Amino acid sequence: MFESVELGRKVAKDEYAAQVMPLRGRLLDLQRRLTGADFPVLVLLGGSDASGRSEAANVLKEWFDVRFLETHSFGKFAREEDHRPERWKHWRTLPPKGRVAIYVGSWYTNVLDRRTVGNLGGGKFRDALEHISTFENMLADDGALILKFWLHIPYAVQKRRLQKLAKNKRTAWRVTDESWAALDRFDKRLRAAAEAIQRTDSGQTPWFLVESACERYRNLTIAETIAQRVDERFRHARRSSPPSLGPLNSVLPDRLEDDHSVLHKIEQGDAKADPKYERKLERLQEKLGELTWRAFEQRVSTVLVFEGWDAAGKGGAIRRVSAAVDARLLRVISIAAPTDEEKSHHYLWRFWRHVPVDGRVTVYDRSWYGRVLVERVEGYAMTDEWKRAYREINEFERELVEHGTVLLKFFLHITPDEQLRRFKERETIAYKQHKISEEDYRNRSKWTQYEAAIDEMVARTSTLTAPWGLIGANNKRSARLAVLDRVVGALEDRLK
Amino acid sequence: MFESVELGRKVAKDEYAAQVMPLRGRLLDLQRRLTGADFPVLVLLGGSDASGRSEAANVLKEWFDVRFLETHSFGKFAREEDHRPERWKHWRTLPPKGRVAIYVGSWYTNVLDRRTVGNLGGGKFRDALEHISTFENMLADDGALILKFWLHIPYAVQKRRLQKLAKNKRTAWRVTDESWAALDRFDKRLRAAAEAIQRTDSGQTPWFLVESACERYRNLTIAETIAQRVDERFRHARRSSPPSLGPLNSVLPDRLEDDHSVLHKIEQGDAKADPKYERKLERLQEKLGELTWRAFEQRVSTVLVFEGWDAAGKGGAIRRVSAAVDARLLRVISIAAPTDEEKSHHYLWRFWRHVPVDGRVTVYDRSWYGRVLVERVEGYAMTDEWKRAYREINEFERELVEHGTVLLKFFLHITPDEQLRRFKERETIAYKQHKISEEDYRNRSKWTQYEAAIDEMVARTSTLTAPWGLIGANNKRSARLAVLDRVVGALEDRLK
Repeated sequence: MFESVELGRKVAKDEYAAQVMPLRGRLLDLQRRLTGADFPVLVLLGGSDASGRSEAANVLKEWFDVRFLETHSFGKFAREEDHRPERWKHWRTLPPKGRVAIYVGSWYTNVLDRRTVGNLGGGKFRDALEHISTFENMLADDGALILKFWLHIPYAVQKRRLQKLAKNKRTAWRVTDESWAALDRFDKRLRAAAEAIQRTDSGQTPWFLVESACERYRNLTIAETIAQRVDERFRHARRSSPPSLGPLNSVLPDRLEDDHSVLHKIEQGDAKADPKYERKLERLQEKLGELTWRAFEQRVSTVLVFEGWDAAGKGGAIRRVSAAVDARLLRVISIAAPTDEEKSHHYLWRFWRHVPVDGRVTVYDRSWYGRVLVERVEGYAMTDEWKRAYREINEFERELVEHGTVLLKFFLHITPDEQLRRFKERETIAYKQHKISEEDYRNRSKWTQYEAAIDEMVARTSTLTAPWGLIGANNKRSARLAVLDRVVGALEDRLK
Repeated sequence: MFESVELGRKVAKDEYAAQVMPLRGRLLDLQRRLTGADFPVLVLLGGSDASGRSEAANVLKEWFDVRFLETHSFGKFAREEDHRPERWKHWRTLPPKGRVAIYVGSWYTNVLDRRTVGNLGGGKFRDALEHISTFENMLADDGALILKFWLHIPYAVQKRRLQKLAKNKRTAWRVTDESWAALDRFDKRLRAAAEAIQRTDSGQTPWFLVESACERYRNLTIAETIAQRVDERFRHARRSSPPSLGPLNSVLPDRLEDDHSVLHKIEQGDAKADPKYERKLERLQEKLGELTWRAFEQRVSTVLVFEGWDAAGKGGAIRRVSAAVDARLLRVISIAAPTDEEKSHHYLWRFWRHVPVDGRVTVYDRSWYGRVLVERVEGYAMTDEWKRAYREINEFERELVEHGTVLLKFFLHITPDEQLRRFKERETIAYKQHKISEEDYRNRSKWTQYEAAIDEMVARTSTLTAPWGLIGANNKRSARLAVLDRVVGALEDRLK
């Protein structure tokens, strides 16, 4: 694979100077246009240690307007420990629309390093690459322009550069035993890189091999490619999917046959009051309190997601869970309209922000499922957006679960009659009046469309590791006990 | 001081139940009103270990709507290391307008702990308390409602509780050798707390001593106080300062006498081109590159602030500095209009966000000084807002410098004629045309008002540890050399 980038390409000094001037002008111009664009740009710089990744990043930093460009580095350079799933720190660095982010060492680095030193078997290596591919394509589907450069230098050149760094007093500190060990693994790493490139190269997340022995040639090639690709993106505005076909009712029949919805199978349990309710509640809350402290000690995180019909009792269920968890361990995130910053990122970015530190608990009151529920039915999201959301959601949840997080998703289901009864009740009770509005009745009129959306959601996102908990909630109290019982059970299974 | 909270106050169960119901209703009602309010609420819970701070926080969490309340904990509980000035993590947790934050352990905890174990001498202790006082008053001036509760239990009760925890299998793990040692230091800590309370108690940041032997009495008292104070705030909308008197020109004379402005004393240097410029630039940039790597190794952060007239050459100076610093160490923050999230916090919050991790460099292209420059002159900030900003800025910078950060502030000064010349030049050069607008000419018409604002800024915020660097910038090149020279010098002085 790398023969094509060991051809000895060079660029002489005067030719370089002649090409750089106009190129810089083009880059600044493109960057200016970018500030109003609706897509972010990600530039990944990969390669062996002495291939000049950081030198290239520094040059780009000069040629672009540094104020609208951020550089990130993963791998040995990073100092902070995150105490969260690995993908969390990648999400944090994602640039908003109109900005450029350069990655010197990226989400590939850790994977390649582990593969090279023998810590990652073939199967797991390919799994990791597949997850990276999914991650990148998720961003690209959302509009991100992703350009990945592999900077290549032949072994002899790498060795020579390391020796030169080691001889120079000023730079000798950068050459450690590890640097020499890495040199020994040169071929191994190259093979791992070749496989990675092959498996993650695609039309919308392309790899570019860059011959990097001559730094002038390297700089020009990278910058020229970026300029071309950004310009191309502007000229052929993203091959966009057809716009939404409008709200759901034009796609699905107005009325499903009664026995089709998975919701109709949910047991609503006894309407009668349970005399043992208080005692059961107390016992479950006590258990949950102990379990969450044990989880804290064992650095196991818990993420609970609550969805459900209006007036189904999400708030009450969340309060009963919250009462059991120590305030210092708990964060309850109420999802409402996104902020400016959130709107300028991929829609999952706002949820990744709140993923808990190891050992803590985050409760999402409404969540990323809004995309495939209200946004789908009301037409707030385009068809391609909610259609690809299922896979994005599954990937997000997989990352959490793979990290060891206990993840539970609850849909609180009430029947239409019960909902109407509760709406009426709210109107009559003064301090609950704020909880009912015209919008609630409007949503109610689309009951069957929501049912269809819920069905598809459950069908597509109920996985082995993150199944949906469909809770019959006509009886508020039994619903709360059911929720607590499941959380307690999941933690008991997970913790030592 | 604590005799008044060792009176044995109690509340019986039935009385408690009778009072809690209406109290909870009031709290929820107030919280609902808070969501539209223009002030945040901070509730600090201090006290000895077994005084029930976290139990109280948990009760509050139940009585409030947990979705609009966050609980934070400083002290031994926190797990993450921040690699930044201590105050940074406090700023991160500050609630936006309309929200409530509860602190179980706050910015007092670390200070009291160190004082108690003998790691903090009397003088430094009082300094720390003064800084806390300044910090809290800064927030209160901006509208925050700050309620500080000291939960007190007598020594005998503390001892009994610890013994009880130790005996119970389920809670024994919480009682460590450190817990018993803390018990021995009970009196010492109480004395430190008494001094802290005395020195930081004020009308707008009041302390409340709460007798906490009886938990029912404790819970009611805290919640009742919060309810009263929030209600009071609503009824007497903050004693607001008179609104801004309008833009600056109604306050200061239109024309300063020529020799009054500090800017007129700045040497503009030679207009002639310096044949040695390139070489000097290269040498300074090379030095800066090495110094920033050394700073990275020594975990010393660098913060550079650039202010100046329009067209003074801030961008060019920033680029020459950026070119010298490795991309992975550098962040350049371009300050423009605040986001929604930033607008709902104290104005300094947005700058605290970007304070660099230890060892890195952050460059602010425009900064917190906007408050006392453009916001003052154009009337975007109210008079009381920019008037108190000087002190807030000094405190902010003091926190950075005390942490060990190298902080440099540059004002790039050009004369009016030179500015006009550059404006005209921009209009004629195609690719610079976007850089000039009507607004630039409008700002120019207020030259003398800006001069007055700059003078006051320099007079009030040029401190021993963070002096202003007034750079004559008519000659762009000499300005760049001057800036680089100062940064290099400051780092050389600071690093080993």
